[in-house]
Amino acid sequence: MSLAGQVVTSEPATAGVRAESFQLANGMDVVVIPDHRAPVVTHMVWYRVGAADEPPGKSGIAHFLEHLMFKATETMKSGEFSKTVARLGGQDNAFTSQDVTAYFQRIARDRLPTVMKMEAERMTKLQLAEKEVITERDVIKEERRSRTDNNPSAILGEEMAAALFKSHPYGIPIIGWMHEIAELSREDALAFYKRHYAPNNAILVVAGDVTGQDVRKLAEETYAKIPRNDNVRAYKRPTEPPQNAARRLELVDERAGEPIFQRHYLAPSYSSAEDGEAEALDLLLKIVASGPTSRLYKELVVDRKIASSVSGYYSGHGKEYGRIVFYGVPSRGHTLEELEAAIDKGLADMAANGVSEAELERAKRVFIADYIYESDNQSTLARRYGFGLVVGQTIEDIETWPEEIRKVKLDDLKRVAAKYFDIKSSVTGYLRPQAAVEAKAKATGDRS
Amino acid sequence: MSLAGQVVTSEPATAGVRAESFQLANGMDVVVIPDHRAPVVTHMVWYRVGAADEPPGKSGIAHFLEHLMFKATETMKSGEFSKTVARLGGQDNAFTSQDVTAYFQRIARDRLPTVMKMEAERMTKLQLAEKEVITERDVIKEERRSRTDNNPSAILGEEMAAALFKSHPYGIPIIGWMHEIAELSREDALAFYKRHYAPNNAILVVAGDVTGQDVRKLAEETYAKIPRNDNVRAYKRPTEPPQNAARRLELVDERAGEPIFQRHYLAPSYSSAEDGEAEALDLLLKIVASGPTSRLYKELVVDRKIASSVSGYYSGHGKEYGRIVFYGVPSRGHTLEELEAAIDKGLADMAANGVSEAELERAKRVFIADYIYESDNQSTLARRYGFGLVVGQTIEDIETWPEEIRKVKLDDLKRVAAKYFDIKSSVTGYLRPQAAVEAKAKATGDRS
Repeated sequence: MSLAGQVVTSEPATAGVRAESFQLANGMDVVVIPDHRAPVVTHMVWYRVGAADEPPGKSGIAHFLEHLMFKATETMKSGEFSKTVARLGGQDNAFTSQDVTAYFQRIARDRLPTVMKMEAERMTKLQLAEKEVITERDVIKEERRSRTDNNPSAILGEEMAAALFKSHPYGIPIIGWMHEIAELSREDALAFYKRHYAPNNAILVVAGDVTGQDVRKLAEETYAKIPRNDNVRAYKRPTEPPQNAARRLELVDERAGEPIFQRHYLAPSYSSAEDGEAEALDLLLKIVASGPTSRLYKELVVDRKIASSVSGYYSGHGKEYGRIVFYGVPSRGHTLEELEAAIDKGLADMAANGVSEAELERAKRVFIADYIYESDNQSTLARRYGFGLVVGQTIEDIETWPEEIRKVKLDDLKRVAAKYFDIKSSVTGYLRPQAAVEAKAKATGDRS
Repeated sequence: MSLAGQVVTSEPATAGVRAESFQLANGMDVVVIPDHRAPVVTHMVWYRVGAADEPPGKSGIAHFLEHLMFKATETMKSGEFSKTVARLGGQDNAFTSQDVTAYFQRIARDRLPTVMKMEAERMTKLQLAEKEVITERDVIKEERRSRTDNNPSAILGEEMAAALFKSHPYGIPIIGWMHEIAELSREDALAFYKRHYAPNNAILVVAGDVTGQDVRKLAEETYAKIPRNDNVRAYKRPTEPPQNAARRLELVDERAGEPIFQRHYLAPSYSSAEDGEAEALDLLLKIVASGPTSRLYKELVVDRKIASSVSGYYSGHGKEYGRIVFYGVPSRGHTLEELEAAIDKGLADMAANGVSEAELERAKRVFIADYIYESDNQSTLARRYGFGLVVGQTIEDIETWPEEIRKVKLDDLKRVAAKYFDIKSSVTGYLRPQAAVEAKAKATGDRS
């Protein structure tokens, strides 16, 4: 990100968006996205820290801290933050990803000063009581139990990531491994907080019925008063060694309602890819596997009926890596092996013969239309900037994305297909409701 | 380890060994193993630090530092250490494992004072010149290229470990990933050195023609003069989340001379296992897969001739985890799939029916005979103590091992087989000289 002391105004390529950005003296970046259709604002603080920045053995601490940020500060009681936002007629929430921890509120324009004051307060004045930390840890353990441990498909997803990444922390789940969550302490949370929460590690994004000048004035009265913290430092994230060997894994879980096939390929992200590659991957996956008009869906679900669902997408928002993901459920009477072979054949055909100009144009139209349509949603728009900036994109990257999508050519799709549909860089996963031998026997009608 | 200030003498259960141990005032542990058959000594310093203690992204730094320990110190020139040992008629070497870095010399008894003086010197007085560090890094890169990157079977081994361990650093190779070795700096080496090399993080093992009193006197004049360093601290190693999904991987490498099958199961180590489990695993693997009289070898190589080699062992010397490893090469005309199915059938038979009392007795006799036989080798004996102590065993554990082996019963073998031959905790790897489709076609006589 190239945010200097002065105001930089970039012309949006589409959708009438014009973000304005500046930096406070303490190093906090500010982005303002005017939207004057209604007297409301979306206020977000994005910290440049996520689960991938956790120290070894402390998985889950980023997300745990996100929960604890709703407890007491020097001047607020535990829970007061959200109660105040609600009383003022607003909504608030937060989320943690591998790269980002973000806090946001949607609220009437005239309430923005209150929200900014409270958000600035909890940036460095959190007060954690031991008892509350332990109670919240139980909440998170329950969250993990219900979302992951009781969900075979979520377990499969964790195993896929762990197998895909040999070194990089994207292989560790955001919520954390249960045995490590169970050991997280108040001290761990405070150490993580002190190391990463500071104005010079944060981006303020305000979208809505305000001007840059309004936000600057309010920021000077709140965030700008927090001293810069030069002790903020991320762990250097290890990068991946070569991907040499195709990996497979099989999870047998009787709680699974249906067998599931997954394939993940390691890929670059928008932040790490060569120019145009991420855009080409987005378009390629849209054509091949996204939605009921995609190639794989039409062939495997509609025509051949060997799958009850097939989908795929390119996940390009990571700081260091992206992923290409395929997902499928075989129809009754068909096996995971059949489905996998059919998907592989579809991908091989596509890599050999490419896609048509008409398919490419339609995919571009859909993406660009979505981009414009989503720009209408204030919260989506604010997220687009926050997410992009925090992983290293510039405002220009974010606003000229439709242009970059338009530039992609048929050959680019062929090239990224050849480069990234590489079985050596992949993990293939099967979720089976029962052991393979029985499953096969049933599928083929043999006696078990 | 329970080494106190006073001398502790433990009675060996076998082999006439009697180690004596004490601790210096600065926290350095000392073990003396008398062996008066010849006027020579084996002198070893074991640091309680290995590759598994490396910071994220710095893989290889433990081994790199081990190389650099032969460079200059405050009073010695680069290379002088080894030259001096050689001039005195001795041999010296060093090695790095996941848990341990050890330096050792074998030398005439009367030269021991010189060696101890030099070894004490390099414990804290290493002087690293930037140029030498870079040159040595090239040496290590070449070591990795020749030992690993040009050796498909070694690459397979790395991939197996990376897939087996989702969190614990045993999944990272000791020598380091090439892209991380290439970035290691003088500062990285010095930081690791200062954090881990200190008398209170080391064990001195001297075997040979000396008494405890001799060694104590010499140690007081050398190691005891180095101040204790309370900044020594290991990173807390992350432990493994549950092993949910059987993993497989396939490495295709045309440089491979023959196809190779491997299976690794995660298991506890001697240090982390419940009482008797590690001993039972050692005996079980000896019976099932070690050497030409083992069950799998007799069945698959001698009788059915579907494999040209099959072997397996239990690796129980890690601090936190052990591994059960199987390895096999199919005979010409047989496939990896056939070999795997045959090994799985052999393991299932054994788990269901156990082994015979005669097999167990023979395995015990072999282990105990080896233990006694190896006790005759001064260097092997010194290593046994060093390795055991550094991963958390006591002198008593080490000396009473034959007793523990004797105690194992048939039921113990069945129990550990049922517990640890669990496909969910395993990785299965295939190394193929060519892609699977061709290989299968050839094996079945189809046209490709």
